[in-house]
Amino acid sequence: MLRYEFEIGRIVKKIREKNVKTVGLQFPEGLKIYATEVARQIEDQTDAVVLISGDPCYGACDVVDTEMNGAADLVVHFGHTPLPLNYDVPVLFVDAHSNVDLIKSLDGALDLLEGYEKIGLVTTTQHLYLLKKMTEFLENHGKTVVMKKGRGTQKGQVLGCNFSAIKELDVDAFLYVGTGNFHSLGIKLFTDKPVIIADPYMGKARNIDEFADRILRIRFARIAKAMDAKNFGIIVSSKKGQSRLDLAQALKKTIHKMGMEAFVIMLDDVSPELLTPFRDLDAFVMTACPRIAIDDSKMYKKPLLTPQELEIVLGIRNWDDYEMDEIKY
Amino acid sequence: MLRYEFEIGRIVKKIREKNVKTVGLQFPEGLKIYATEVARQIEDQTDAVVLISGDPCYGACDVVDTEMNGAADLVVHFGHTPLPLNYDVPVLFVDAHSNVDLIKSLDGALDLLEGYEKIGLVTTTQHLYLLKKMTEFLENHGKTVVMKKGRGTQKGQVLGCNFSAIKELDVDAFLYVGTGNFHSLGIKLFTDKPVIIADPYMGKARNIDEFADRILRIRFARIAKAMDAKNFGIIVSSKKGQSRLDLAQALKKTIHKMGMEAFVIMLDDVSPELLTPFRDLDAFVMTACPRIAIDDSKMYKKPLLTPQELEIVLGIRNWDDYEMDEIKY
Repeated sequence: MLRYEFEIGRIVKKIREKNVKTVGLQFPEGLKIYATEVARQIEDQTDAVVLISGDPCYGACDVVDTEMNGAADLVVHFGHTPLPLNYDVPVLFVDAHSNVDLIKSLDGALDLLEGYEKIGLVTTTQHLYLLKKMTEFLENHGKTVVMKKGRGTQKGQVLGCNFSAIKELDVDAFLYVGTGNFHSLGIKLFTDKPVIIADPYMGKARNIDEFADRILRIRFARIAKAMDAKNFGIIVSSKKGQSRLDLAQALKKTIHKMGMEAFVIMLDDVSPELLTPFRDLDAFVMTACPRIAIDDSKMYKKPLLTPQELEIVLGIRNWDDYEMDEIKY
Repeated sequence: MLRYEFEIGRIVKKIREKNVKTVGLQFPEGLKIYATEVARQIEDQTDAVVLISGDPCYGACDVVDTEMNGAADLVVHFGHTPLPLNYDVPVLFVDAHSNVDLIKSLDGALDLLEGYEKIGLVTTTQHLYLLKKMTEFLENHGKTVVMKKGRGTQKGQVLGCNFSAIKELDVDAFLYVGTGNFHSLGIKLFTDKPVIIADPYMGKARNIDEFADRILRIRFARIAKAMDAKNFGIIVSSKKGQSRLDLAQALKKTIHKMGMEAFVIMLDDVSPELLTPFRDLDAFVMTACPRIAIDDSKMYKKPLLTPQELEIVLGIRNWDDYEMDEIKY
């Protein structure tokens, strides 16, 4: 079984230092099952009362500081690194990494990286603490490792909405260490370089190409379907870290100028059933989390587009300039 | 087809008066299908930009003033009357009543009210504007109509979380005009008087007794099942109008004193899947909307109790003193 590092000691120290009366705990979906155990340990070791957030949480864009303002003096947010946002309550970020065994997946990745010398090394929050080990491994196998800090992200770190750490890097190929395909897809589309995924949970490595081709075919089908749309719903998030109201209003104006209709719809958590009442709208544009339109595409009956995809629909961007959506903090 | 009175004229006047740049619109679930039409009319008649809230909305406890703070200068909230809360953005409440035909359901109610002279007349927001007509109808048929203002509600008005308008009324029976069973169930349980429902949408009248018996049997089964619980989750709402954190913390202390465990879990919208990660908890207590534990009971595998039901489980309230939950604003 995987064990996660919840850093109870650091949390307890902070609670005592700041004389915290009520501490809010927020976990991403995969770690929520540990919430009561972490709460129990904190209440056993301090005089603070714990308040657990049960709302869905997918990133540091989505801290419950506003919800817990007045209820908690400190929020501990697990599983993500901070974003440059102003929080209503002090927030302690704990990355809560697990003790994964890297070597098996890195061994597999070496085969797939054959012929490439300069490797751009990339990962997500959970595995940042392993970057040094991964670099050593690659260097021991004759590779040169290249990394840089992104805008608002750490060296070698990408987010689902922020690929700045991989742009304009002089490398032959990228090695992405982590789960899922979304981040690697972004790296592929932004750089057009070979991208190898080393999945530490599966203990395997793979190439992103086939997945990227499949996703692009789906995206182009969605874009083509949206070409018939006359009325658009533009979704804007009420989450502080996902809110792009200016972009939403600008897209609405652009659509209006082209003689079509658009309505800006504000949502907290986005789900297909919440769009059901808007039955007169033909397509939706997502200005909240950039992952939703791509990852949840199948769940939506009507086309759900990124802002860049809308530009293709409106004829102000070429299909050849297809780009992933990012949030600029 | 039902037509609703969205009072566009009043909204447009307010927008012009206050020189509103962006107006937020919030509709309860049943009225969301009219959102784009209302938005279109407002944008046609003013210079304001409209922002539609797509989040679920079940009451005035749940106004999107916090979510729209900074994004809109005015929120128009349809379908509910104001609660005594402090809003972050000015809120205009529009009851958005429909043109229902009352007479058929009232005719049927007369039969069921035979033998009762003093009638407590009760309704919900949507039909408040018809109270005068209903009173006349009842008086013309020899009844005496009794009503009073509630704590934070208008004369003759109940909410799902506030039955103060029907308490200590000297009547022989109640006539509830509206849909669903929840409000009548509350009236029945708080007063133990006969309660007749006149449903203007169905055009029919009925007695609440059978439904009340069925619900009480379900509630007692849930309470009995929760008697085995050792670990409780106490749900507290992050919605301003549903937040009862003090109650939640007090319940937690009471449970602790009895040698059991309790964790306070904060949620915005409550749904069964959000409780899935808390697999070590045996039962949940709902301090958010009082309707959830009763109306959605079947959706939850583990017992979901009201605070009063928890008291029965803990042996500090008798089954004979079963009471509906209310929120005291």
